[in-house]
Amino acid sequence: MNTAIVNGAAFCYTYKSMDKFTINLETTESLIVIDKEIALGRLEINPSNALIVTDKTLSGNAALASYIKSSGCPSVVLPSGEAYKNLESIKKIAEAALRSGLDRQAVFIGIGGGVICDMCAFAASVYMRGCRLVLLPTSLLSMVDASIGGKTGVDFLEKKNLIGSFYPADKVFIYIDFLKTLPESEYRSGLAEIIKHALLTGPELLGFLEDNKELIMRRKAGILEELISKSLRVKAEYIETDFREQGIRAHLNFGHTFGHALEAAAGLGRFTHGEAVAWGMERSLRAGVKIGLTDRNYAERVRALLLGYGYNLDFEDFDRKLFFEAIAADKKKKNGQIQFILQRNIGETFSKALDLELVKEVI
Amino acid sequence: MNTAIVNGAAFCYTYKSMDKFTINLETTESLIVIDKEIALGRLEINPSNALIVTDKTLSGNAALASYIKSSGCPSVVLPSGEAYKNLESIKKIAEAALRSGLDRQAVFIGIGGGVICDMCAFAASVYMRGCRLVLLPTSLLSMVDASIGGKTGVDFLEKKNLIGSFYPADKVFIYIDFLKTLPESEYRSGLAEIIKHALLTGPELLGFLEDNKELIMRRKAGILEELISKSLRVKAEYIETDFREQGIRAHLNFGHTFGHALEAAAGLGRFTHGEAVAWGMERSLRAGVKIGLTDRNYAERVRALLLGYGYNLDFEDFDRKLFFEAIAADKKKKNGQIQFILQRNIGETFSKALDLELVKEVI
Repeated sequence: MNTAIVNGAAFCYTYKSMDKFTINLETTESLIVIDKEIALGRLEINPSNALIVTDKTLSGNAALASYIKSSGCPSVVLPSGEAYKNLESIKKIAEAALRSGLDRQAVFIGIGGGVICDMCAFAASVYMRGCRLVLLPTSLLSMVDASIGGKTGVDFLEKKNLIGSFYPADKVFIYIDFLKTLPESEYRSGLAEIIKHALLTGPELLGFLEDNKELIMRRKAGILEELISKSLRVKAEYIETDFREQGIRAHLNFGHTFGHALEAAAGLGRFTHGEAVAWGMERSLRAGVKIGLTDRNYAERVRALLLGYGYNLDFEDFDRKLFFEAIAADKKKKNGQIQFILQRNIGETFSKALDLELVKEVI
Repeated sequence: MNTAIVNGAAFCYTYKSMDKFTINLETTESLIVIDKEIALGRLEINPSNALIVTDKTLSGNAALASYIKSSGCPSVVLPSGEAYKNLESIKKIAEAALRSGLDRQAVFIGIGGGVICDMCAFAASVYMRGCRLVLLPTSLLSMVDASIGGKTGVDFLEKKNLIGSFYPADKVFIYIDFLKTLPESEYRSGLAEIIKHALLTGPELLGFLEDNKELIMRRKAGILEELISKSLRVKAEYIETDFREQGIRAHLNFGHTFGHALEAAAGLGRFTHGEAVAWGMERSLRAGVKIGLTDRNYAERVRALLLGYGYNLDFEDFDRKLFFEAIAADKKKKNGQIQFILQRNIGETFSKALDLELVKEVI
């Protein structure tokens, strides 16, 4: 983050209500500058009844530190990283809120990547049985994924997001400029979810990704806004239809059963979340081709796209035992069977239990 | 609990949906016997995807222990009492659920008083972002209060229910026979909430309480069923109108701001929750009379009723400093001002900030 953000392009989306889930996506120039008067004014935040939640990495950023100071809001700074995505961090947030005298009209403001967004949202959902929530995602992954959709949570006993809730933010602000300094692997992590959204929806976004690879990889502002906005619209449609993941929203897990298992088996930090999902999407399509359900041309086209964006798809150096333990423990079980999300072709997605022998063959 | 419960009279209520909150109250003879085949059959519970949550006191009951064993469900037994109403207990529940392989279609079954019902419900609301919930309240208070309305939670940093959620049970089963062995002060605790419901709604239930005092205090089964059922209908109406306590549901806090503060100031175990609420309702009416808003005849009638049921209304031996600290920390603040629930007369309830000098005068 640098001063450019202060007057940078941004867009925000608003959830209309929690029960009837609709998303209103607005794109404007300088919708909100990060500045006490205007930002807090627009958000209707009373700084004495708000709490900023961020992490050590971000709080080391001088511009953000100065914003937090000038906002007049109390803040809590958590250690960075997935290892701290636990109930202890939630206690720290709740303790900071209580010590600052926050009541149930309070606003929790999460500024950070997916871990901070998920934890700040979970804390907001349970503090005094639920207060208001604003998110400022700082990574591409959290912009297109964690910040939208209302899934909150912390890890527990080494299970990702085992404890959590469905609790959409009242508002999410997206500042493209946060992406300027994002490490390459983190950028690619978010990009994989965008590619997933393209594969789920239809040819337009997929074509956009194929045609604009250079500009996207150079993180060109205009292109990025268009890309993120298109991607958010895809996710929004799924969530509006099926907020609590009773049906079609599960399609958003495309690549995730394989991907989560790879994350568990490859060792911490080897793959970012999205890099593992990219690997997982390729494996899902490969499995679909094997059983004659997936169009082979389509699978090859996706593989070429992913390779073009620099994903490591041929990684095999991981612990098979850990991999299958992770598969067996997947949250998305139904009647004891692990459901995989597969595709026939672009936009043709379905859920199916797979034989574990087949999974062995494709990994 | 004794064997009579196994074939005792019971009734249950069902929530139709979480978002549009409606309650369906059914009263039948032996609606469900606590018996593996029939109970689990009616609940459509798969014992290998369910978890019974109870506490040490109840698990010491031979009939219940044998029920839990024969149900085939795994169970977790927590230490008894408010001191264990914390996140550590939630972790124990989640750990038991995870070790038993429960997935997001699982059913958590809480059997106990308010503490167990609140904690089991909170755990169900956050385990894998929410699974199903069945409650079997065993105290009068939890039958008429904690089990209905979907407020879940645990205490944190000595604040009651600071961490929690709104998450109604899918089904609640009420077995009157659980009340046979309930200690007197616990029985009176639940009765105070029933009296509160009478005062909020109108003359019929109040008359019923005045006319049937002897039978109610003798815990006569037919009368108890009628009383609990009437009381639940009052609470249900408030909750259906205002599930998330944005407005009128706050009336259910009548007597609670005074009562919670007394609980904090009188020392642990001196008053049960309902006994403190009874004291608080009397003080709220007294405050209303002082400022000319409450009908004096009505206040005297309520005082007589409460005294008739054996509540200690003239208790003054508590720490004033602790009392006012508790008042200041009340969750039901609005713009920094503590809102008290007052009444003009029966069924005429409103919310008002009170001068602390006035509070001092009436306690």
